[in-house]
Amino acid sequence: MRFSHESLSQTVVFATGEAHRAVADEVAALGVSKVMVIASEREAALADRIVAQLPVVRRHTEVVMHVPVEVADRARAAAAAAGADVLVSVGGGSTTGLAKAVALTSGLPIVAIPTTYAGSEATNVWGLTDGDRKTTGIDNRVLPASIVYDAELLTTLPAEMAVASGLNALAHCVDAMWGPRVDPIDQVFAVEGIRALAAGLPAVAQDPSGVPGVEETLYGAYLAAVAFASAGSGMHHKICHVLGGMFNLPHAQTHAIVLPYVLAFNAPNAAAQERRIAHAFGAESATEGLATLRRAVGAPSALRDIGMPEEGIAQAMDPVLRAVPAGNPTPVAPENLIALLRAAWAGDPL
Amino acid sequence: MRFSHESLSQTVVFATGEAHRAVADEVAALGVSKVMVIASEREAALADRIVAQLPVVRRHTEVVMHVPVEVADRARAAAAAAGADVLVSVGGGSTTGLAKAVALTSGLPIVAIPTTYAGSEATNVWGLTDGDRKTTGIDNRVLPASIVYDAELLTTLPAEMAVASGLNALAHCVDAMWGPRVDPIDQVFAVEGIRALAAGLPAVAQDPSGVPGVEETLYGAYLAAVAFASAGSGMHHKICHVLGGMFNLPHAQTHAIVLPYVLAFNAPNAAAQERRIAHAFGAESATEGLATLRRAVGAPSALRDIGMPEEGIAQAMDPVLRAVPAGNPTPVAPENLIALLRAAWAGDPL
Repeated sequence: MRFSHESLSQTVVFATGEAHRAVADEVAALGVSKVMVIASEREAALADRIVAQLPVVRRHTEVVMHVPVEVADRARAAAAAAGADVLVSVGGGSTTGLAKAVALTSGLPIVAIPTTYAGSEATNVWGLTDGDRKTTGIDNRVLPASIVYDAELLTTLPAEMAVASGLNALAHCVDAMWGPRVDPIDQVFAVEGIRALAAGLPAVAQDPSGVPGVEETLYGAYLAAVAFASAGSGMHHKICHVLGGMFNLPHAQTHAIVLPYVLAFNAPNAAAQERRIAHAFGAESATEGLATLRRAVGAPSALRDIGMPEEGIAQAMDPVLRAVPAGNPTPVAPENLIALLRAAWAGDPL
Repeated sequence: MRFSHESLSQTVVFATGEAHRAVADEVAALGVSKVMVIASEREAALADRIVAQLPVVRRHTEVVMHVPVEVADRARAAAAAAGADVLVSVGGGSTTGLAKAVALTSGLPIVAIPTTYAGSEATNVWGLTDGDRKTTGIDNRVLPASIVYDAELLTTLPAEMAVASGLNALAHCVDAMWGPRVDPIDQVFAVEGIRALAAGLPAVAQDPSGVPGVEETLYGAYLAAVAFASAGSGMHHKICHVLGGMFNLPHAQTHAIVLPYVLAFNAPNAAAQERRIAHAFGAESATEGLATLRRAVGAPSALRDIGMPEEGIAQAMDPVLRAVPAGNPTPVAPENLIALLRAAWAGDPL
């Protein structure tokens, strides 16, 4: 047993239907009083209800995917001009990401109210884009001081989007089990995340407006983000990153398709992790547990169906081979990798 | 699902046989360079080996149980006089407690190297005594910035002391499952702690110098402290606190004796927790799992054997009835409480 695990300072509140009250509590606990609200136009009405009782000095609605630097700079200037001493973000990954960009240079604390299962609110990872170039980094200053999860805010997410996003969180959990920096504490979070997502996602797929399923899925997505941020990207995320970048594939769907193939690839050489994943699914084996969940939620099953060309298999080989961490349970070689990619492309049964 | 969970900022390092190197890394990461070493005379040689390469400005050896205020004041003055910018503590609960007392008023970061399973290094709880009066409090400034666990430092603990201390940690885990502020994340830590302690303690009982058993026990004791500090004292700890204070009973042994009776008392009304505890023990039931572990480690079984008088049962009734949290799974009444205390006093089979 040899590891180093960093626990990060953060308060996580689950308060279904009570976001406004919980956010007020968190702002009060921080001892701050000048709130800059960050929420896109689409989320403005939602945000207004949540912050109605707060001392708001500025509403900022310019939220853009991948946080372009010029968008970040305008938000930073707005926070400074308004004399804000706290950022309250209401939205998905892009909104949280913008709040993080402001926190990165200003040190302002963030209270994040997520409206998707993206998980960015639970990590110290920031990202900015300058034209085509994406820069990411790690800084504890960007970790929101508090997260307020209110399941009611997610009950209007379309089922298909909720399922794709939840399967993305599941991929964080599974890949964390053998991530390059994984430690036993990450694994505990990841296993509990798999259990929660396996319980929540089928309920969400059947009835996206059902609060208990959304709560379990949110809880699982939170744990997934904590585990993954600490353990680092494993083989699965490296493959998805390469394919997504090369062929502009939809993020969550790519994860949903590739995950079972990577799990089947690694399971024979990761017996302890396989047993724990299986148990978290309540299944005989990890692959069977994942297959059952995927059937229950109607997950997509072939990369060719979401826009990957067949010749992409050969093109992806070298970058994937270079990217997969050295400690991956099953050593990756051209022969077994091409078989994996071909199967995921065609949606072959496992 | 409605809870608020505070994760605290702390780095936990497991580095068997490598404490000196790991401590140097943690001190460097903190960006500090004037070390005050806190270690009792008994631990001085041990501490010297660990800090040999560090920039030590002061060695402080006056460590006294329960941290008397005058002892704390002398340590604070010493830290100030030496211009220390970090406290490195090597020892058990009293040593960590003295470092916390200095941190409480100075804000200095602590790097803690524990030599027992007490768990204080993983909590934000401090304690001071002024004559007979003990004051405790919660302050995030006293939470060590880093813990370095080196199993080799615990391989010389006598088996009986190691087992008692480990069972004390187990009681933290079990009682956390229904603690007054318990949340799902605490339960995840507590369940993993039970699993680790159930694996580690029998190995330690059989061979106190065996590193793998000590590592598992240390890991379990760490998780126990994290879970318990967040969830708060449940029925078990309230009983032990009352009995310990009234009859001056040995702390760890009291916990070891009382725990199975409280578990049996609560299990019928805590089905979900009972299932998770049973699974963590790898047993059919939680009570059976605990009984098996107790047999394996030769735990003490009757309060009368450790100095509690029979009339103490009646004397303890009122204070215990007042202390047990309102949300205890099984409602506590004079009839069922006196039966519990009588059974624990006599060591009746469950």
